[in-house]
Amino acid sequence: MATKPSIPKGTRDFGPVEMLRRKYIFGTIERVFQKYGYLPLETPAMENLDTLTGKYGEEGDRLIFKILKRGAELERAVQDGSKSLAAEALRYDLTVPFARYVVQNQNELAFPFKRYQIQPVWRADRPQKGRYREFYQCDADVIGSTSLLNEVELVCLMQEVFDALALKVKVHVNNRKILLGLVELFNVSDRATEFITIMDKRDKVGVEGVAEELRKNNFSSKVVDDLTAFYGRIIPMEDERGPQNHRMLSTMFEEAGVAVGLQGLKELGDVFYALANGATKAVDNRVFHDLTLARGLDYYTGAIFEVKAAEGTLHSSICGGGRYDDLTGVFGLKGMSGVGISFGADRIYDVLLETNKFPTELGSSTKLLFANFGEKEAMHCLKLLRQVREAGIASELYPDQVKLPKQFTYAEKKGIPYVAIVGETEMNAGLVTLKKMGANEKGDAMTMDELIQRLK
Amino acid sequence: MATKPSIPKGTRDFGPVEMLRRKYIFGTIERVFQKYGYLPLETPAMENLDTLTGKYGEEGDRLIFKILKRGAELERAVQDGSKSLAAEALRYDLTVPFARYVVQNQNELAFPFKRYQIQPVWRADRPQKGRYREFYQCDADVIGSTSLLNEVELVCLMQEVFDALALKVKVHVNNRKILLGLVELFNVSDRATEFITIMDKRDKVGVEGVAEELRKNNFSSKVVDDLTAFYGRIIPMEDERGPQNHRMLSTMFEEAGVAVGLQGLKELGDVFYALANGATKAVDNRVFHDLTLARGLDYYTGAIFEVKAAEGTLHSSICGGGRYDDLTGVFGLKGMSGVGISFGADRIYDVLLETNKFPTELGSSTKLLFANFGEKEAMHCLKLLRQVREAGIASELYPDQVKLPKQFTYAEKKGIPYVAIVGETEMNAGLVTLKKMGANEKGDAMTMDELIQRLK
Repeated sequence: MATKPSIPKGTRDFGPVEMLRRKYIFGTIERVFQKYGYLPLETPAMENLDTLTGKYGEEGDRLIFKILKRGAELERAVQDGSKSLAAEALRYDLTVPFARYVVQNQNELAFPFKRYQIQPVWRADRPQKGRYREFYQCDADVIGSTSLLNEVELVCLMQEVFDALALKVKVHVNNRKILLGLVELFNVSDRATEFITIMDKRDKVGVEGVAEELRKNNFSSKVVDDLTAFYGRIIPMEDERGPQNHRMLSTMFEEAGVAVGLQGLKELGDVFYALANGATKAVDNRVFHDLTLARGLDYYTGAIFEVKAAEGTLHSSICGGGRYDDLTGVFGLKGMSGVGISFGADRIYDVLLETNKFPTELGSSTKLLFANFGEKEAMHCLKLLRQVREAGIASELYPDQVKLPKQFTYAEKKGIPYVAIVGETEMNAGLVTLKKMGANEKGDAMTMDELIQRLK
Repeated sequence: MATKPSIPKGTRDFGPVEMLRRKYIFGTIERVFQKYGYLPLETPAMENLDTLTGKYGEEGDRLIFKILKRGAELERAVQDGSKSLAAEALRYDLTVPFARYVVQNQNELAFPFKRYQIQPVWRADRPQKGRYREFYQCDADVIGSTSLLNEVELVCLMQEVFDALALKVKVHVNNRKILLGLVELFNVSDRATEFITIMDKRDKVGVEGVAEELRKNNFSSKVVDDLTAFYGRIIPMEDERGPQNHRMLSTMFEEAGVAVGLQGLKELGDVFYALANGATKAVDNRVFHDLTLARGLDYYTGAIFEVKAAEGTLHSSICGGGRYDDLTGVFGLKGMSGVGISFGADRIYDVLLETNKFPTELGSSTKLLFANFGEKEAMHCLKLLRQVREAGIASELYPDQVKLPKQFTYAEKKGIPYVAIVGETEMNAGLVTLKKMGANEKGDAMTMDELIQRLK
């Protein structure tokens, strides 16, 4: 093979610099997950095909990567008319494998079961900017409890993750029951999903855009007028008078006798009450009631969460989630309510990069390079190297005896901040000359103890 | 779907207990990798099929999991007679993707390039005890340097990993050039691979077994007698006179004028010299010259490594590696010598479990559970929970208001060591009653400061 090799479209290699940054993101999230009592789970990349099909809609089914059968099985399948060339497939998300795991292990698990899972998923989507065929998901879910304390905890957890990443964000919270209440209020129950989907776009297209789309889809002018009037009464969520929306909605639902809407408001109110009463210290990462938030509406039945960066120019969703009433029913285990969130690692990466929030010392994991001056010096350096590593400092010895500039280029390319010079002079004097990369100086001769003190 | 769901054969779910143990193994190895200047790399699960085929032999090619084409492409392939139903495949190891990455990025990388990679690989092997279709590999390689200092460093790295895991091991080291020297010495150069493969079995079948297999494969009785006599002169590698083998072999190679054998001995001697002169402190994890070690012989060209546990009953290989002279040639980049090692996480897991070496606190990441006594108490506990977490202690609040024994069962199943009781009495007194799980006592009432001090 003489042509330069490549990788499948929509996939990526992550080299050292990207990997160290990604590890910082995943490590931070994982630490907070564990601090909140979520425990790790990993499921296989491959699931049985029938575990996955029918769970993501028709479009989803088409995007599942399937594993080709092998050997005699494949031959038989081809002869049978190619109807069943695959019996296994790559996981499409972490939620269905999680549900499958819970059902399979229901007798051993301690409920409520709190798990986190950080693994790649695969989707045969058309690749485009920011959309990949392999990407990590980063989920935490609690299943087997209907308590709203779970929602409170998840909001705190999201705040704490972004606090730890030093990123200012806005946490949007809504409740699907409020959306269903609006549907009832505006008399569009027969077209609920459609109505909510259009309403969800206000963020992007504005009130006039929503009205236009409603008209285009043959909603009556009364519905359009009612919704427009309603929007006119809403106070923007970031306004300090924002909480008045709650009272306004409450009055509307009460007057029209919309029980589901009132229930949604109560649930949301309970969550905000707990947050306001000391569950969180939320200073930078404020929580808002976003009346129109509807993400994943076919799926969620209660709380809905979404987090957006409040810094930089990238304002797409970097974390989201919600409550679902029946995750495991499709696998035969009824009555399991759960609530969960999912962090979008790729988007968080982009936001941290743009806002310059990655810690600088992530650039390299090696702190010190011993230059190689020849066989005798290298043998001597191996002992010094051992001392430095015993002090917990990541370090290495340049393995080949080449000209010094080449060794310095290596340190520079790899982002190693310090080079130790141990020539014959230093060796005989029991010293090391320490040079800081980028500093225009000869470097200081020092003992190993001093060097270790300096680098620690 | 009413039947209980399952996962594909040869794959595994890793629940919380296993995951925490696996994370301990991977985390330990990764820390040492970074301390030695190896940087992380991740490649996609899918590679182009032609990147993988032809790299693992005929048997290997059959065991590659291929990705079924989709849509119009698939229809075309089926009509074309099913010859090319797949264009992508799951990676079979980490070495070929590493080589592909190096070639693809040769102009940007700093050579010698030291990378580590911890990712799953997939092989359609027949599943059996200890052999899976999905398993993690855990590799460190340095490419672009022929210096033996790399070998020295890798031996130290292996020792340090098992030191950190508190597991006593034996590090077996050999050099393929010594094996080639023996081949020349015994005049079997025309059947070198076959001869070395049989010789490699001495560990399992003994000298008599090796002799028998040689006879069965029509090696001459002179060869059999010579090798048997040679074995008779070898001192067991763990004997303190073991190093005499080196001199004996050296004399034999010199007398017969076997240059390659002498070169192998010199390389091995240099590595042992550096190790003995302070590169390592190797007390428990001793390094031996294992004259017959040959693993992966088609692949390695210089040093060969293998690590086996020196405790417990499981003595299969838990880490191995060696030097290869031309890893990237197949992708068009010639003259790149490399040396690397690979840790067998599944086997290390089994050994640590059998020898009881997993730290006990890995059992749970949650340290404290606040029991739930009702709405008012729970609201109060949310504030206490925040204090405990701010002190860095992993903790949670039982979300539902159920009978206390059920909450204790939850703590027990999850391995949570402490339960905080905050009923009305405690709440009014500003105290918490801390109960240690398993201890047959009422528990002590204390302030939050005391509780945090106790658990830290």
